[in-house]
Amino acid sequence: MKLADLGEFGLIKRIAENIDDKLLRNSIGIGDDCAVIQKNEKESYLITTDMLIEDIHFLKEHIKAEELGNKALAVNLSDIAAMGGKPRWIFLSLALPAKTEIAWTDRFFKGFLELAEMTGCLLLGGDTTHSKKNIIINVVVIGEIETEKIKFRDKAIIGDLICTTDLVGNSGCGLRLLLEKKFDPAIEAHRNMLQAHHLPRANLQEGSWLADFPEVHAMIDISDGLDSDVQQIIENSQVGAQLFLEKLPLASQMKKIAEKFSWNAEKLAISSGEDYCLIVTIAPSAFPDIAKKFQKHFGRNLNFIGKITDSKKLEVIEKGKNIDLIQKGYDHFRSEEKWKNIEDY
Amino acid sequence: MKLADLGEFGLIKRIAENIDDKLLRNSIGIGDDCAVIQKNEKESYLITTDMLIEDIHFLKEHIKAEELGNKALAVNLSDIAAMGGKPRWIFLSLALPAKTEIAWTDRFFKGFLELAEMTGCLLLGGDTTHSKKNIIINVVVIGEIETEKIKFRDKAIIGDLICTTDLVGNSGCGLRLLLEKKFDPAIEAHRNMLQAHHLPRANLQEGSWLADFPEVHAMIDISDGLDSDVQQIIENSQVGAQLFLEKLPLASQMKKIAEKFSWNAEKLAISSGEDYCLIVTIAPSAFPDIAKKFQKHFGRNLNFIGKITDSKKLEVIEKGKNIDLIQKGYDHFRSEEKWKNIEDY
Repeated sequence: MKLADLGEFGLIKRIAENIDDKLLRNSIGIGDDCAVIQKNEKESYLITTDMLIEDIHFLKEHIKAEELGNKALAVNLSDIAAMGGKPRWIFLSLALPAKTEIAWTDRFFKGFLELAEMTGCLLLGGDTTHSKKNIIINVVVIGEIETEKIKFRDKAIIGDLICTTDLVGNSGCGLRLLLEKKFDPAIEAHRNMLQAHHLPRANLQEGSWLADFPEVHAMIDISDGLDSDVQQIIENSQVGAQLFLEKLPLASQMKKIAEKFSWNAEKLAISSGEDYCLIVTIAPSAFPDIAKKFQKHFGRNLNFIGKITDSKKLEVIEKGKNIDLIQKGYDHFRSEEKWKNIEDY
Repeated sequence: MKLADLGEFGLIKRIAENIDDKLLRNSIGIGDDCAVIQKNEKESYLITTDMLIEDIHFLKEHIKAEELGNKALAVNLSDIAAMGGKPRWIFLSLALPAKTEIAWTDRFFKGFLELAEMTGCLLLGGDTTHSKKNIIINVVVIGEIETEKIKFRDKAIIGDLICTTDLVGNSGCGLRLLLEKKFDPAIEAHRNMLQAHHLPRANLQEGSWLADFPEVHAMIDISDGLDSDVQQIIENSQVGAQLFLEKLPLASQMKKIAEKFSWNAEKLAISSGEDYCLIVTIAPSAFPDIAKKFQKHFGRNLNFIGKITDSKKLEVIEKGKNIDLIQKGYDHFRSEEKWKNIEDY
């Protein structure tokens, strides 16, 4: 059997099965956005790591070095945000071909270190090495949080409302403009979509703020795709979910672009991923108060998009009807078809 | 300017210059084997990360999957050993081509997890992703130690004796047998050399034991090469060193192989690296007692190989004479010549 047959989530399950549960007494292991290590009676560390590979996760000729530095850190900060923590320390492993221009690495570090400083993180170490052809980036972020405030993906409760902390689909729209060679740098809306893809913003303040509410039950960030990230919540919480396609918070610029190219904006938004805002499930009785305070604090809506149900499956509802989503979230081992245009993009 | 002109250590210096020293109040940053994060008044965490890339750091057809899993962890454990710590938690990022056999990944995890269990570590998380062609492995290990016992590479004192905790050169000999197509699997000595290269043993017990002695001043593990790792000690401690070529502890099997192929065994041992035992500098007055106790505890010698001097340079002494070592340690960005045979090895 090849890895392509098993998929990324299949591999993770297989690894987890290899690990003796008894070993994991004081720590929460494989499967959530971050691992948790108890620091003392009250506090814990959150630890997350992500790898970005040239030609798989980014194309060097399309993303600026500063943006790549920023994004490599942002996607990890987003995992800290998804558990409610505050990021503190960073480790960076970087493999570079010998032909890499030093000016490029300087700009990469500029983007990386500016975001580190802005979010109060210190780069403490890492590894630098040679690669033959492609740039490889591995980032580790360690955060801190009061243990009782940690939010997990397995704590959704039947009846919870599902919300997102920001608009969805801009990042996917930006990527699709590139992939289908429709990106026009002269159009401001196109540039905004591409920026959402290349300069995602980790919802650190939002995550930390929401973690203060015990009525916020489950939390996860949108990386693989809204649909597959909600799938993560329901599988881990052993519940079901309904997502209402009409409720997805879409930017008007994004809707106009989708209309122009006859794309289904909602379906693009639900499956394309890399939004890096948060999905939260909230007790319905607490939702009005939390949503009001969120609006006041952050100046934008906490967007209601669905409900946690007892169905044990994900239902996507369009005009009151359950529809089949053919286009699934992005599983890195199975996504060849998504990137089939990569050679000439 | 290209990265090839700057080299790996040049890049690390350039990154370090970008980072405001004032930011690093409670932590020791870039430059030692591990970063140090203060846990509480008495204890600290040690954190290290290393990246291994197929065709750069290993060749898949030459190293067994179990051995690679073991080695990917061992080289990181060695960094924890070099500061005197005890390893606790592991994070593994793994990028695999879709064509990878699941049986291969199972054996990789077997080797990885067996060593984790043997050394009391827990695999807490990581990242799995797709790569186009090569396997990429990034490992992070977090260890613990009493803060006052941490050993650094910048604490060598003029007059200190330089010692190694094990034999040196077997790993380099194994690699050279492979690179020069002289490896004969029917010969036990050849198999032993290759095993030293493919299954290095992190000197965790030795490092932790030595950390108890305040007279042990500086410590580092042999990864890049004995010469360039001693160079790290003297540059960071702002001292010099003499290494006595005749004093290098070489295995008799290794010396016989070198003799047969007319290799200079000492020069191979001093520059080839990847031994993953420790180099320590010890106050001369304390050396006899520590060496005696080491011999009793570990059943082998703490090997005296040189002295810390005030010369601010590394001198390699052969038969009382200072010699020039043309063959330098292995800097990953500059080592193309070392791996020039890689395509057909």
